[in-house]
Amino acid sequence: MSIKENVVKKSKRANEAAKDLANLGSEIKNEALLAMADALLDRKDYILEENEKDMEYGRENDLPESLLDRLLLTEDRIEKMANGLREVAQFDDPIGEMMEMKKRPNGLKIGKVKVPLGVIGIIYEARPNVTVDAAGLCLKAGNTVVLRGSSSAINSNKAIVKVIAKAAYQAGLPEGSIELIESTERKAVQEMFKLNDYLDVLIPRGGAGLINAVVNNSTVPVIETGVGNCHTYVDSEADLDMATEITINAKTQRTGVCNAMETLLVHQDVAEEFLPQMVDELQQRDTTVKGDDRVQEIVDDVQAASEEDWATEFLDYILAIKVVDSFDAAVEHIDEYSTKHSEAIITENYTKAHKFTDIIDAAAVYVNASTRFTDGGQFGLGAEIGISTQKLHARGPMGVNELTTTKFIVFGEGQVRE
Amino acid sequence: MSIKENVVKKSKRANEAAKDLANLGSEIKNEALLAMADALLDRKDYILEENEKDMEYGRENDLPESLLDRLLLTEDRIEKMANGLREVAQFDDPIGEMMEMKKRPNGLKIGKVKVPLGVIGIIYEARPNVTVDAAGLCLKAGNTVVLRGSSSAINSNKAIVKVIAKAAYQAGLPEGSIELIESTERKAVQEMFKLNDYLDVLIPRGGAGLINAVVNNSTVPVIETGVGNCHTYVDSEADLDMATEITINAKTQRTGVCNAMETLLVHQDVAEEFLPQMVDELQQRDTTVKGDDRVQEIVDDVQAASEEDWATEFLDYILAIKVVDSFDAAVEHIDEYSTKHSEAIITENYTKAHKFTDIIDAAAVYVNASTRFTDGGQFGLGAEIGISTQKLHARGPMGVNELTTTKFIVFGEGQVRE
Repeated sequence: MSIKENVVKKSKRANEAAKDLANLGSEIKNEALLAMADALLDRKDYILEENEKDMEYGRENDLPESLLDRLLLTEDRIEKMANGLREVAQFDDPIGEMMEMKKRPNGLKIGKVKVPLGVIGIIYEARPNVTVDAAGLCLKAGNTVVLRGSSSAINSNKAIVKVIAKAAYQAGLPEGSIELIESTERKAVQEMFKLNDYLDVLIPRGGAGLINAVVNNSTVPVIETGVGNCHTYVDSEADLDMATEITINAKTQRTGVCNAMETLLVHQDVAEEFLPQMVDELQQRDTTVKGDDRVQEIVDDVQAASEEDWATEFLDYILAIKVVDSFDAAVEHIDEYSTKHSEAIITENYTKAHKFTDIIDAAAVYVNASTRFTDGGQFGLGAEIGISTQKLHARGPMGVNELTTTKFIVFGEGQVRE
Repeated sequence: MSIKENVVKKSKRANEAAKDLANLGSEIKNEALLAMADALLDRKDYILEENEKDMEYGRENDLPESLLDRLLLTEDRIEKMANGLREVAQFDDPIGEMMEMKKRPNGLKIGKVKVPLGVIGIIYEARPNVTVDAAGLCLKAGNTVVLRGSSSAINSNKAIVKVIAKAAYQAGLPEGSIELIESTERKAVQEMFKLNDYLDVLIPRGGAGLINAVVNNSTVPVIETGVGNCHTYVDSEADLDMATEITINAKTQRTGVCNAMETLLVHQDVAEEFLPQMVDELQQRDTTVKGDDRVQEIVDDVQAASEEDWATEFLDYILAIKVVDSFDAAVEHIDEYSTKHSEAIITENYTKAHKFTDIIDAAAVYVNASTRFTDGGQFGLGAEIGISTQKLHARGPMGVNELTTTKFIVFGEGQVRE
């Protein structure tokens, strides 16, 4: 069977399954999620064995340590995956909720009901836990899922899907509810891009390269996720102790994530007071600081920031810092370089705080808090399938609710249009 | 200036304007809409003159009568366009509505506020009134708009945009709020497809060819609208008088629209009683009936329906009719050929009515009513920018509300993530 035939076959099967899954009740879906969790634990030795194959291959091919760590499964990590599924089983089921039903003047009762999107394609990199998390969230919202992970995790992903798909099927979900594209050829992904007949949406999870490839080549609707060139602006009226704490948190609490800060903007009136101590604190935490001319004037030992740095999502212990003349200059810089993920202002000034939240165009706009909070769990939405940085359909952390669509239901008594 | 430069320039200008327009209050937006309405009436002679050029050109090039009629502007039609703008001015402004704001356990106040999408590109055919309707709805929701109409209406569109853009600007909207791509070359549209930096969404309005071209080639997110291969299923337990009335309405009340019925499915138990009279009524209304073998057995003078007919949106006085063995067979046929726009069942059976609305996957699912009601005005949403047949973002009639997105606003007091 060619790669294309295989991708079509699996997507078609997921599409067929979606019709049945859409109308299964919450009980069966939740039982399936719990059964999947149990199966992961029951079969953990098998999954760890298969994961070890990926790890060996990764080490032979000199994958960087950070990637190997993302790839690694342990008993503890498998338990976390299982607990994630149990948590999702606890969520309210959004499907079937009639959001509005009104009686029109002509007697038609018109309502809007939440229904699954259908088939969700997830294209992702490295971490095998995405396989479980994504499948769980999609199923909860009544969607089937076609997964396509990276070649480096292929043995782990095959093992995981084998285990959870079987458990889901035995618990009563239709066959084809969880499909994995096993081909590690790029061609397999390219086939997914064109399967509008079988896939309702594609969600890429990974770096900018992956996301751009999907956005630029897919005719299937895409939800863009995750690239975050996030800024924090320290205003002239900021509480500088608070600004220091937030800066350190937003940059160093976890660096490889999309909601970490990448550029710090500092108002000129507070730069001399704020920067020396701030840079020192960062450097103590092994963070490389790159600054514009004015930062370099104020602090020694700071590399020059290039034009490219302002546009870079470092995802590392690197921070670009710029001194700005005014609130407006900060907003302008953000407008130019932001990926519209998460942006923050630190200020005690009421008017500037509200102006910032009004005019900054991003999925999440913060006053006096760390951008690290942009996350489904932190926002109270439960687990998330990703963080949308586009404006259509969903913006910001996407939970189970964002994996649904609606349809209008119209109950008549013979009405015709005049 | 090359076509590309021109399209980029206008889109960029709309993008700049969008930043200002997003935070203008309702008052200025509404004043602008009313000023645009006044200007259309004040300058109607000029607009009619320019429209006459398009009409002449159309007649010289033997455009079909139906297209010429869509192209034609009259005093009455201009008045309707103006009234449309006045109606939109009356709508509630969705922008700035804080939909939820919750205090999280850590004290963060997290809310979700409605904001404009930004810049909306509308690619449309023939009817010059779309120019006004689309601009009005986009502006109301705080979006700027880049319009690209068809070459056959270019003089009308240029005149209309000149008039309304000037009025909008004088009323206080930023320059660039309404932009028209004047090039009638296909290349101009193709340039729009790739302008992700300046356009937030593309909405095609027109036939299947146009819509497919946009969906298949645009990297800018698209909202698919309008192709409707709509079915009505007359169940074995239907009230046949009601079924007759609804069939006639759904097929013949207006044929060139996406919510008109294209295929009638009739349960075998009622086919012999229902069809002869039904077909007679349709033929009296100059409607060509195409049937499968069983329809042809029951009624004389019926053409054979081909496989292709089941998949065709006739948009004309043509109806395909099929006799089905069962409820399930009707659902299967709809699943196979539906464009997921509007689907109806005629039945007095409670269980089948609910089963139909549960399992049919379409933007609007009807019981005992004509599919012709799928329309923003009829659904109580006010004027519509189109009817979405995709699942992302919006489904069914899209009004002002569907031209918005959200952002999260987070008010903190120095919170950092543990």
